[in-house]
Formats: sequence, C-alpha cells, structure tokens
Amino acid sequence: MIRMYDLIQKKKDGKALTQEEIDFMIDGYTKGDISNEQMSAFCMAVYFKGMNPDETSGLTMAMANSGDTVDLSGIDGFKVDKHSTGGVGDKTTFIVMSIVASLGIKVAKMSGRGLGHTGGTLDKIESIPGIQIEFHPDDFLRRVEEVGACLAGQTGELAPADKKLYALRDETATVDNLSLISASIMSKKIASGADGIVLDVKTGNGAFMKDFEDALKLAKEMVDIGERCGKKTAALITDMNAPIGYHIGNGLEMMEVIHVLKGVRLATDLIDLCIELSAHMIQLATDAPIETCREQAHRQLESGAALEKFGDIIAAQGGDTTCLDDPDVLETANIAAFVSAPKTGYITAMNTETLGLVSGMLGAGRQTADDVINNYGSGIKLTAKTGDFVEKNQMIAIFKTDDEAILDSAKALFLQGVEFGPEKPIKPPLIYARVTKENVEIYQNKD
Amino acid sequence: MIRMYDLIQKKKDGKALTQEEIDFMIDGYTKGDISNEQMSAFCMAVYFKGMNPDETSGLTMAMANSGDTVDLSGIDGFKVDKHSTGGVGDKTTFIVMSIVASLGIKVAKMSGRGLGHTGGTLDKIESIPGIQIEFHPDDFLRRVEEVGACLAGQTGELAPADKKLYALRDETATVDNLSLISASIMSKKIASGADGIVLDVKTGNGAFMKDFEDALKLAKEMVDIGERCGKKTAALITDMNAPIGYHIGNGLEMMEVIHVLKGVRLATDLIDLCIELSAHMIQLATDAPIETCREQAHRQLESGAALEKFGDIIAAQGGDTTCLDDPDVLETANIAAFVSAPKTGYITAMNTETLGLVSGMLGAGRQTADDVINNYGSGIKLTAKTGDFVEKNQMIAIFKTDDEAILDSAKALFLQGVEFGPEKPIKPPLIYARVTKENVEIYQNKD
Repeated sequence: MIRMYDLIQKKKDGKALTQEEIDFMIDGYTKGDISNEQMSAFCMAVYFKGMNPDETSGLTMAMANSGDTVDLSGIDGFKVDKHSTGGVGDKTTFIVMSIVASLGIKVAKMSGRGLGHTGGTLDKIESIPGIQIEFHPDDFLRRVEEVGACLAGQTGELAPADKKLYALRDETATVDNLSLISASIMSKKIASGADGIVLDVKTGNGAFMKDFEDALKLAKEMVDIGERCGKKTAALITDMNAPIGYHIGNGLEMMEVIHVLKGVRLATDLIDLCIELSAHMIQLATDAPIETCREQAHRQLESGAALEKFGDIIAAQGGDTTCLDDPDVLETANIAAFVSAPKTGYITAMNTETLGLVSGMLGAGRQTADDVINNYGSGIKLTAKTGDFVEKNQMIAIFKTDDEAILDSAKALFLQGVEFGPEKPIKPPLIYARVTKENVEIYQNKD
Repeated sequence: MIRMYDLIQKKKDGKALTQEEIDFMIDGYTKGDISNEQMSAFCMAVYFKGMNPDETSGLTMAMANSGDTVDLSGIDGFKVDKHSTGGVGDKTTFIVMSIVASLGIKVAKMSGRGLGHTGGTLDKIESIPGIQIEFHPDDFLRRVEEVGACLAGQTGELAPADKKLYALRDETATVDNLSLISASIMSKKIASGADGIVLDVKTGNGAFMKDFEDALKLAKEMVDIGERCGKKTAALITDMNAPIGYHIGNGLEMMEVIHVLKGVRLATDLIDLCIELSAHMIQLATDAPIETCREQAHRQLESGAALEKFGDIIAAQGGDTTCLDDPDVLETANIAAFVSAPKTGYITAMNTETLGLVSGMLGAGRQTADDVINNYGSGIKLTAKTGDFVEKNQMIAIFKTDDEAILDSAKALFLQGVEFGPEKPIKPPLIYARVTKENVEIYQNKD
C-alpha cells in the first residue's frame, strides 16, 4: 500500500517517485485524502531535491487528468494552442489566432482574466460589445470547427489538482521550482486538448523569469514535458523589458490589434512577435521549414486574410464588428490625461511591471479576483518607448480613465517606472531564442 | 511586519532567523494564526538547511514559553530533573529520585504514560495501590518542598507549541532533524522549571537513535540548548541493546525497583545506570567531583536512605507502602507462563523493541493513547539476558498476564526477538559517554 508519508520520505532522500506513486498522490490530493500539510512538506522536499524528467511529465499528466479534459479529436485538422507566461500589453493571442486560423489550422483557445500587473485575454476581448466567452463545450467545439477558432473562458474544471496545488505553493513559498512551475503550466495546456503548443516564455523586468538563463531552463523543461506527453511543443523566449506595442488596457489593446490587422505598421515589436509565434504554430501543424512558415504568416497578415478571420471569430461569438471599421469606438474612457517627459534625453528603461500596475490603477485591472473592470477603455497609450529621444515636457503617454482622483498618483508611479539618460540605450532583442525538441537556437540581436 | 511566508523563504535560502522572527512564528502557530501548511514547509526547509545553535535554543525557549510553565523558585535548594529518550525496562527514575532526594536535592518530576513499545513512568507508579499522580500545582510544589520529590502527571499545559508541532512533523516526515528533536525534548524540560537537567540518551536496537554517533550529536545539541537556556545540563549516552534490568511491565518493574532499593544486587546494569545518573544529578547540584558524587549515590543506596526516601514519596502521594515490605503483592497477574530456550547456546542478542511489544501484548501497554492498562502486574520477568549461556528447554523468561489466548503468539514474537549462538557475545558498554558543557568523555568498555 502506498502511503503519502513514505513518498515525502522518498523525496527527502532524493529518490524518484514512480508513476503509480505520483498518480496516487495527485488523485488523493485532489479528493482531499492527502492533507495540505503533507503536500506542503512534499513540495519543499521537491524544491531541494528536484524531480527528474519522468517524474515531471508524470506529475503533469496526473494533474491534467485530475478533472475535465477537452476532447478536440472530433475536429478535423491540426489543433494548436499558444501560451504566454504573462506580460504587459501582450495582445498577440488575437492576432496569431487570426493568422493561423486563416490557414485552416484550428485554435481552441481557453483563457483567463487579469490579476495584478498583467491583463487577461478574456478581459481584453470583452471590451468588444456583445462578445460572448462562456459556451457549452459542444458550442465551443462547433465554433472551432466552423470558424477555425474560438476564444472562451474555461469550460468545465480543468486540472483541479493544479489549481489546489498552486494555491498551496503560493502560501508555503514553494512556487519557485522549475519542475513544479512547468508541470503547473503544462497540465492545463494538456487538459485543453490541442495537438501542438507554442509557448511564449517572457524574460525581463516585467516577467516572472527576470533572467534569460532561467527562462531558457523553463522553456526547455516545458518543451520536454509537452513532447513526453505526446504534444508537439515549441517555445520562444521573448523580451519583457518593455510593454508589447504601445497600448496597455483592455479596449485600448483591442484597438491596437485591429490597427495591426488593418495594416498599421507602428508597433513593430508586436507585429514581429506575432509573426514569429504564428510561424511556430504553423510549423507544428505543417512541419514546413520555419522560413516558409514566417512567409505564410506575413502573407496572411498583409493580405487582410487575418483581419477577415478575426471578424469571423468575433461575429461567431456575438461580438459587434463595428470596431473593425472604427477601432476608436473602443476608446470609451472619459478622461484623457497627457504625461510629459520630466527632462530631455533618451528613455533608457521602462519598468514594465510598474506600467502594468498604473494601467490597473487607471481602471483596466483587478487587485483581487472578485474586482470588476472599471471601464474597458481605461489604460495607457504610450507615445514613446525605450530608446526614443524626447524633449522635456514632450508627451510620452496618454492616460485614459474615468477616475480623475487617481491621475496624480498614477502619473507619479508611471514616472518612477521610466528612466531617462543622455545616451541611446542598447535595445535588447525582441526574441532571444527558440526551443524545439531538436535544439535550442539563440537568435542574433537585430539592432 | 514579519510574515511567515518570508520566514519560510529565509530558511529555504539557508539564512538564520532572528529571535524576534522565531517568537513571531511560534506565537502565531500556537494561536493558529500561522497555518499547518506553512509550518510544514518550514520544517522541511529546516530539515535541509538546519538551524544554528542560537536558532535552536531560541526555538526551544519560544516553545517552552508557549503555554504554562512550572515555577520552582519558591522551593529552597537546587531542583534537578532527569529525562530519558525512552527505553524498555527503564525504571531508573524511581531509584534516582529517591537517591537524590535523600541528599536534599529536590526533584519535581513530571512524567507521561506509555505508548507502543515503551512503558510510561506514570503507568509504572500507578501499579502501587492508592497512589495519586494528579495534583493541583500548589499541592505538587508543597510535596516537593516537604518530601524532597514528587512524581506527577503534567500540571497545566506545558509547551503546547511543541505538542502541536510534533504532531505535524509526525504527519509530514519532518521528525528526523536534530535541532527540531532537541528543541522538542528540551522545551518541555525547560517549561518544567528545574535548575539542572540530566539527560539519558539511549542508543541501540530498542532506542530512537540506533547509532552511537547520532546519539552523541543529540546529546551535545541538548546539552548546548540547556546551557544556553540557563539550565545546568549533562547527558549520558547509554545502551539500549537489552532491557534495563530483568523486569518489563509496570508492577513488575516497581518490584525490581524495590528489590534494588532493598539491597538485591541481581540487576547490576540497572544499579550501575542509576548510580551514574544520580551522580550526575548530584554533580549539577553540588559541583563536586564526579567520583565524589558516585560515592554519595552509592552510600545513599547501600545505607537504605534511598529506600526510606522512596517510602516517604509513595506515602506522601497516598500510595500503599505494603509493597515495600512485600514487593510480591505487585505481581497481580493470574497466569505465569514459562518461556524455554529453543536451543543450547549463548543468548547473543535481544531485540529490545520486540520485548517491549511483547510486554504490551501481555497487558502492560497501550496501542493507542485511549487504551487502558489490562493488569498492572502483566509483563515479562527475564531469567536470562544477552551473554548468558542456556541449555535447550531451560527457562529464559516468565510471562505474567491475564490473557491466556495471547500466550502462543507472545511467545513466538518473543523468540523472534532473541538470538542464540555458539560463542559468548562481546557485551557493549552500559554507558558509552558523558556529555557536559565542558567536554565529551567516552567511557571505556568495562568488560
């Protein structure tokens, strides 16, 4: 008979658990037969002794199978998913799903809401009037089948073991173990049923992984888990030392998405990132050379096919497509306040986490999961970013909000997060590396 | 503001907690403000990263102060306590408290009940008819003052933090850390209020610490804690590869105690151990050379002063002193069953834990804390021990019990715990070493 006490002891002694033992542990923990106390001690033992690749993928599968799973096998063709470890101003999902779906690759995307300094994909799309994101599983699958993509809240209870375990780790200072982090992310992706997964692992001052080396380890671990669990998996390691694009905040981000889909070429970082992510999703689906996939992604964006697909997706979910013709309708906040540069010089750094918090203060975010979004049009429109030269008093951002009282403290916090200096900073690469099951390719800095 | 999350993180990183942080943690845990989950993670981090001497003594003091404490300051003279890490047939407490109290050194002894393979001091003394062990604290102290010694159950709730923490560690496989073990034992001793503490750290097949080196580390750690907490502390490391003396079981052990006090010199291991423990208690009280203390202890035992003091202690607690004249009255079990040697040869080893379990089966012990003692006269009277030569079918033990049905399985288990061989085994020393704040002295094997 397996006893949790013995599994803790085994891990303390640095030994590997068998799949049977991991299944016993996760099944018992999900049911409440194994106590939080015991699981907490186990996680701390894992922190010190680690888990080998077999254990990590075994844990991932056990958590993926701990609740509902999405069965996409009834949908023709290759189903691909994309996951970001969380960034500020990251609105790539809407663009890449439109590009990829326009090529006949299916995207059944389940997303979450924002919390703290990062926004949520569901919050962003809900800025479009009429949009529906809660579906019966059958309706969700039918939309994926018919339109090629659907973006929804979670259907059913995916990976409840992960949810319970993550809350425990968050309480007991046992979050920061690579195997546990990777298994947590991948368990939900695997339960979501796609054939292929592209991971966008952020690194930089606005990311969970501040250092490139840590991000690389996480990417390798997750790709390894995905492949061991039978999913085609690739990862990009991308920069989060500045927001993605110029807009932060739900409706403002959707405006920027529509601008890009309609051919505006201002936010080159956003566009480049979307092309690269789309290319890797296409490659998982087609096995074509990556350069071919990049060209396909470009073509779908430039031809307007992605815009058309985006319109189809929105319409199929009941959304008002007026915003496609006139994105400004999404700018619903009543106050527009300019933020000026306090001195002349180059913007040498932006603390992305700070900018995310400011956007939340302006009404775009939540402090707790129960908060409601103040106004979907709230947020920040940057008019300058890291590397730009600005004159003193030149406008560097526009705040959109309904809350005049918050403006002064929001501006003060914002300016704490922006650094100025006399010399043009060296711009970091947008994409540092790609990780596939075959190899790791470090990208050259394009600047 | 101190947060438990940060303390876990600090210990994970191998850093030392301050006294303020330890006090915050133990106070919050005792009150229930800090969760079992967090404490469990903390204990596992301690397992891997340890605690330094300051932290360990700080934890001990915090736990000692987490509930009631016994104030012995109103009692004249030096108050000394003795603690054993737990053995089989260990009835030294009754003899050493009688020797020491007969010299005017005060012993305010609080003990517990037996569980599993070890007997409890309270259970043993309760075999004497009429004996009282529950006292109002004032009555307990008055008996110590007037008679010189009192043996009681715990008055008030001593070190509740330790009780709660030990139960958690027992569930989460975090018992086996030297600092946590030492702090657990010492917190209760310090809350008990004595000026000096002699520790009897057992090692061998019937002990928690199977190896001498581990026992030595534990002894050093506990002496260090005691001294840091302002208590004069010494430890003996003693053998637990055989039961102490010949009798196992509550009333049977009290018989052997009275035999020793009355001058019977059969159980030389028991007598030698009592002299050595008493000598160290006397030394803590008087600072005399240890050889002088040994002579004093011998004299009190040989002169009958210890027997007289034992009678006073029993009488003051309401006990019937008939047993002092006629110890056989304690032999109350109805069945006496002989156990014979299955072959001719030397007894080469006795599994002391097994013998303790057999005694329990015969009616002397408890499987759970709620069990009652079947018959206080139940247990084992050994008639041969390790190193003795026996003929096949020669009696090696007498089982005393009221439960005839258990006899066959008890005999079978007993014989599993006794090994026979053609050569006289090398007898281990009874006392391996003494640990004081000044030094560690390894004793020579007397055989």
